[in-house]
Amino acid sequence: MSKALPNELGRVMVTSGAGDYPVIVGPGTTSGLPSLLLSLAAPHRVAMITDSHVGPLYADALAATCRAESLDVEVFQFEAGEASKTRKTWATLTDQMLEAGMGRDTVVVSVGGGVSTDLAGFVAATFLRGVPVVQVPTSYLAMIDASVGGKTGVDVRAGKNLVGAFHPPLAVVIDTTLLETLPVAERAQGLVEALKHGAIRDESYFDALIGDLGALLAAEPIRAAEVVLSSVRIKAEIVGQDERESGVRQILNFGHTIGHAMEAASSYVLGHGAAVAMGMKGEAAVGEALGVTQAGTRRRLDDALAPLLNVAGEDPRWIASTLDVDSVMSFLCKDKKARAGRPRFVLLEQIGTVAAGKRWTHAIPSDLVQDSVLGATQ
Amino acid sequence: MSKALPNELGRVMVTSGAGDYPVIVGPGTTSGLPSLLLSLAAPHRVAMITDSHVGPLYADALAATCRAESLDVEVFQFEAGEASKTRKTWATLTDQMLEAGMGRDTVVVSVGGGVSTDLAGFVAATFLRGVPVVQVPTSYLAMIDASVGGKTGVDVRAGKNLVGAFHPPLAVVIDTTLLETLPVAERAQGLVEALKHGAIRDESYFDALIGDLGALLAAEPIRAAEVVLSSVRIKAEIVGQDERESGVRQILNFGHTIGHAMEAASSYVLGHGAAVAMGMKGEAAVGEALGVTQAGTRRRLDDALAPLLNVAGEDPRWIASTLDVDSVMSFLCKDKKARAGRPRFVLLEQIGTVAAGKRWTHAIPSDLVQDSVLGATQ
Repeated sequence: MSKALPNELGRVMVTSGAGDYPVIVGPGTTSGLPSLLLSLAAPHRVAMITDSHVGPLYADALAATCRAESLDVEVFQFEAGEASKTRKTWATLTDQMLEAGMGRDTVVVSVGGGVSTDLAGFVAATFLRGVPVVQVPTSYLAMIDASVGGKTGVDVRAGKNLVGAFHPPLAVVIDTTLLETLPVAERAQGLVEALKHGAIRDESYFDALIGDLGALLAAEPIRAAEVVLSSVRIKAEIVGQDERESGVRQILNFGHTIGHAMEAASSYVLGHGAAVAMGMKGEAAVGEALGVTQAGTRRRLDDALAPLLNVAGEDPRWIASTLDVDSVMSFLCKDKKARAGRPRFVLLEQIGTVAAGKRWTHAIPSDLVQDSVLGATQ
Repeated sequence: MSKALPNELGRVMVTSGAGDYPVIVGPGTTSGLPSLLLSLAAPHRVAMITDSHVGPLYADALAATCRAESLDVEVFQFEAGEASKTRKTWATLTDQMLEAGMGRDTVVVSVGGGVSTDLAGFVAATFLRGVPVVQVPTSYLAMIDASVGGKTGVDVRAGKNLVGAFHPPLAVVIDTTLLETLPVAERAQGLVEALKHGAIRDESYFDALIGDLGALLAAEPIRAAEVVLSSVRIKAEIVGQDERESGVRQILNFGHTIGHAMEAASSYVLGHGAAVAMGMKGEAAVGEALGVTQAGTRRRLDDALAPLLNVAGEDPRWIASTLDVDSVMSFLCKDKKARAGRPRFVLLEQIGTVAAGKRWTHAIPSDLVQDSVLGATQ
């Protein structure tokens, strides 16, 4: 594991109860995928899982590269889109691997965005009671957030990600040249999570991101790799302390309590990044009203997020006019952190620091909950 | 965890990467289930999963006992039988729990035989990425084997237990008075696994079982509890060394390579215990032919197993006449331990000792594989 991949800019080791794993970042690192697979796992078979969009763009070529190094690779493709992140697709992929005669000496390689990360990860977690997975994320969202931390799962009628497993990867290979084909609106959605990392842990990173938004939205591979590395370092430091989210890992949910409720209330028309952006603003507004969050924080978040929402094509006023506040409120009270129907938020002290609260969350007085939702959309 | 349950005869601590857990054995221990749940987990909600046979017999009453101690328990019942051990039942149980508003502070309690153990365990392993499970096995098979070791899963078209997870329980509560309602044929099927434990690890236990078969088939609660404790000790010692079955845990598969192939070839008409009994005989015959297993071992196994097969209503000659040897051979070559289509068996040195081999298994020359299958049915 000590050998650097070609074009490697840096790597982060993530601590995990199931075994530490490297996140390897650089523009062009996927050229080293075959040798990495051989050194890590020497798998008998490789099941490369991808979607109908990323398959023709990247996965088929990556499979060919692996085969050229004598790896026995089969590609399993599912229909692109969040609608595929279901138990049905999971079962189909599993059955296809079984029909192909794959056994315990199989390694799953996921090539794609957050849907692929979560879905292929869950296939690997449950295939013959668990085989290793290597994550090759192709979107900012998956590079910055989804591929690190070991969360896998699928959506069910009752909500997103409610069925799944913690299944840390064997390795994550992040190649920022793959961002080239990512639509700019999706780049903007993904970069919201980077700003969140700055907001909860590192003010100077937050400010640097604002200065560099142009290069990042252009997916300039070196600058993108540097930012991904910074975000992965922050996330790794947090999940390394609390893999199962019983304590400090909660702070990664900043913006997500309101964000998830808004996504659900919009029937997932609202993009994840935009929802989290609005959630951060709403949760900062409540924090300021409670005197927990430094005055002016909400405005700083708004200034940083407005260009991303704009590029993402998500207009807060339009969102406000279409979202049903009662519906958002009802989803808020069902949030996983809620206790006895009362939502709990992660609150900032200021940009760069989270207020500790009780296990990193704060009960929100009911009269402020509605204000927070309205505040998010202003 | 130090406080003994009422009627506790003994307990075994099982070592697990996810946290050690106690297996608590005695006639009447389930009366202590409510206090155990409160001391272990202080759960907000309890999801008691059982089948349509065991529910009315035991789970409904256990749920009432728990409610009397202020636990918030809901019972989820699936149709009894191996045919229910599917992804479909798993999804239905999960959705029912979500509809009941259960969250991360839920504990699953499985009350039933091996199907319930595996199915409820897999529900717990994947519900909101994993909640704790307490196993309350009600059959010999589940008490002696299925509830210890953390294996959970469901069957799919391609085979049994091919989808699942390692999810060690929080605790296992074994109450041997529950065996009273278990049909004697199923008692016999389950006791085969106890003889297997003796065969691989402890000759004097093997011999003691033979002497006590009458009391055990009568499900005499104290004697049953002593035997369950002995078997759990043997299994715990093995899985504690190798939870993920990469080494010594393989030896628990003695009899299971041929056994699983026979079960599959019979379309699961053949009972699990009977199949393992025949598998042990076949694998001993091959071991003797290879000079690995002491001569006479197969005959000793045959003598010990014949009464159990008889009580189980499984006649080896009838099985031999109905099983298609080619079909058994084909399933053998697809066994999870097979390498390049060549089956590998766990072989005894003699009763009480396994021959180490290469990672505890031995490649079997192809001409002997057919003999082994024929040998199993003689």
